[in-house]
Amino acid sequence: MSAVTSTRIVLASRPDGEPNPGNFRTETTKLPELSDGQVLLRTVYLSLDPYMRGRMSAAESYADPVEVGEVMVGVVVAQVVESRSPDVPSGSYVLSYSGWQTHAVADAGSVRLLDPDAAPLSTALGVLGMPGFTAYAGLLRIGRPQPGETVVVAAAAGPVGSAVGQIAKIHGARAVGIAGGPDKCAYVRDELGFDAVIDHRAPDFAEQLRAAVPGGIDVYFENVGGPVTAAVLPLLNLYARIPVCGLVSQYNAATAPEGPDRLPAFMGLILTKSLTVRGFIQSEFVREMYADFERDASRWLSEGRLKYREDVVDGLGNAPEAFLGMLHGTNFGKLVVRVGPEE
Amino acid sequence: MSAVTSTRIVLASRPDGEPNPGNFRTETTKLPELSDGQVLLRTVYLSLDPYMRGRMSAAESYADPVEVGEVMVGVVVAQVVESRSPDVPSGSYVLSYSGWQTHAVADAGSVRLLDPDAAPLSTALGVLGMPGFTAYAGLLRIGRPQPGETVVVAAAAGPVGSAVGQIAKIHGARAVGIAGGPDKCAYVRDELGFDAVIDHRAPDFAEQLRAAVPGGIDVYFENVGGPVTAAVLPLLNLYARIPVCGLVSQYNAATAPEGPDRLPAFMGLILTKSLTVRGFIQSEFVREMYADFERDASRWLSEGRLKYREDVVDGLGNAPEAFLGMLHGTNFGKLVVRVGPEE
Repeated sequence: MSAVTSTRIVLASRPDGEPNPGNFRTETTKLPELSDGQVLLRTVYLSLDPYMRGRMSAAESYADPVEVGEVMVGVVVAQVVESRSPDVPSGSYVLSYSGWQTHAVADAGSVRLLDPDAAPLSTALGVLGMPGFTAYAGLLRIGRPQPGETVVVAAAAGPVGSAVGQIAKIHGARAVGIAGGPDKCAYVRDELGFDAVIDHRAPDFAEQLRAAVPGGIDVYFENVGGPVTAAVLPLLNLYARIPVCGLVSQYNAATAPEGPDRLPAFMGLILTKSLTVRGFIQSEFVREMYADFERDASRWLSEGRLKYREDVVDGLGNAPEAFLGMLHGTNFGKLVVRVGPEE
Repeated sequence: MSAVTSTRIVLASRPDGEPNPGNFRTETTKLPELSDGQVLLRTVYLSLDPYMRGRMSAAESYADPVEVGEVMVGVVVAQVVESRSPDVPSGSYVLSYSGWQTHAVADAGSVRLLDPDAAPLSTALGVLGMPGFTAYAGLLRIGRPQPGETVVVAAAAGPVGSAVGQIAKIHGARAVGIAGGPDKCAYVRDELGFDAVIDHRAPDFAEQLRAAVPGGIDVYFENVGGPVTAAVLPLLNLYARIPVCGLVSQYNAATAPEGPDRLPAFMGLILTKSLTVRGFIQSEFVREMYADFERDASRWLSEGRLKYREDVVDGLGNAPEAFLGMLHGTNFGKLVVRVGPEE
């Protein structure tokens, strides 16, 4: 087979605060010939997720940043175009960490075979993939909701938040969601079946939240930070748990905001309420819980107890704009870029 | 027996920020006659502890505040002067929550018999009492130090901090203490055997702390807050644990300090380092761990592996001044007021 050309989106420069389209650049590159044990992949779906904002910055984090000039990281669903591995045959579909590009060469051992008949392929990037597992592990391992307790989660129409609330309900807890705008709120309440939903854009958001949790908050699944967190803190119960999964509202802040300094009061609250605040990345729990997650989430999905919604954008070239919008909540459901056709 | 008079120190007014002697008032009161099942107590030792500052304020906390005009709360070692309970004979020594007073009537079921031959009576207020158990439970249940890990604790010459470091060493961890002034630092290093000690008054405190933890910090036992916490945060390792036991440096703050607002950066650190921050009160763990603590701490004490130091102040009338000084670290060791003679 002659050498294949891949179109890819690389990090052109690091953002200073808010990222913009100029931080990305489209390139084409010739892929190398396959070696034994490698596969040539054609990207079908690219997952866009908030954690990618962190990788654009050089600040110390749990993962190495993307280097300037390198392809943006990301998980994709891809079809195998050519294979030099008996384990991953040509024509099969795989999950791969190939990033924002149309084609890639990967070691067969680094990809994971998907069964296209078990569930729609794109669910491997959402409800049955990393976002779903993030919700499952963070909620059950750190949040540990008990029957009758109240779980609050923001970005409740998104892939992580929607799963958090639904899994909380499955475990007998009360789910209160926070979302932006009437359409998302209606979806969270009417489609996902949360017990209550609050629009964080409402001027009386904090009062509405208080009214929605008459028994206080036992688990706050933290994925946004900012004003939502500020409204949640006074409502936390003794022994409340806060799995900290993301802080999308503050990813673009270049400097510490003005005072007053709320850190001492937060430490005081942790002390007087015996709170547990625990940051996590889903990868920490893969060994311990991933098999359980696959079994549970597939069953809940087939039973209609775990619903999801996707926001599919067509064309790799639209990935930067879709990603930048996601940081402001413009997507409605799991954001996926359709890079190529399924077949 | 004729009615007994008790001298007691009551909360005269709630402090506005820094408490002062005017917030306390000395009164005398006639105690009621004993009913069946009650004992008359003569206070020997009164324990003074930082948590009492919280009880002087009306702010919501894990425990009800002391009401204005009521006797200040506190644990005491007392001798039974008269008994109408077969379980607690006259002449015996007990632990009781009688507060800042010379005599008290208590239900026999609310006191705990002490063996004056097992250990010095005052240790029931310190290394073998609530402060020792606070260190034991918070360190082992939340901090969970592993062999070779680094544990940092402030107020390292005090009753909780000194036990934290020594128990960390017993469990194979490295103990780094923070204390105020050369005498306390020498005691922590030379008597208690911490691996390193830093004087928080040193102008280059943060740099000295960094140099003392070349492998970073795995457990920060939080009992002070303020500048010590600020110096610790950048040194925390991935998966570090922070048991939050007290925040004595900020108990007197009446309003939130000026900015910048460090809360967003702290949440970001919790996320990127997968930190566990967990507030606790020792009472949460009594059922689960107190028997283990008594067994372990008594053995370590007798083996010379768990040392302690007491700062004994004579006379109940000196309790307010001693308490106010403790909030600024003027005591050296567990602060105890000798209210009456042992025999």
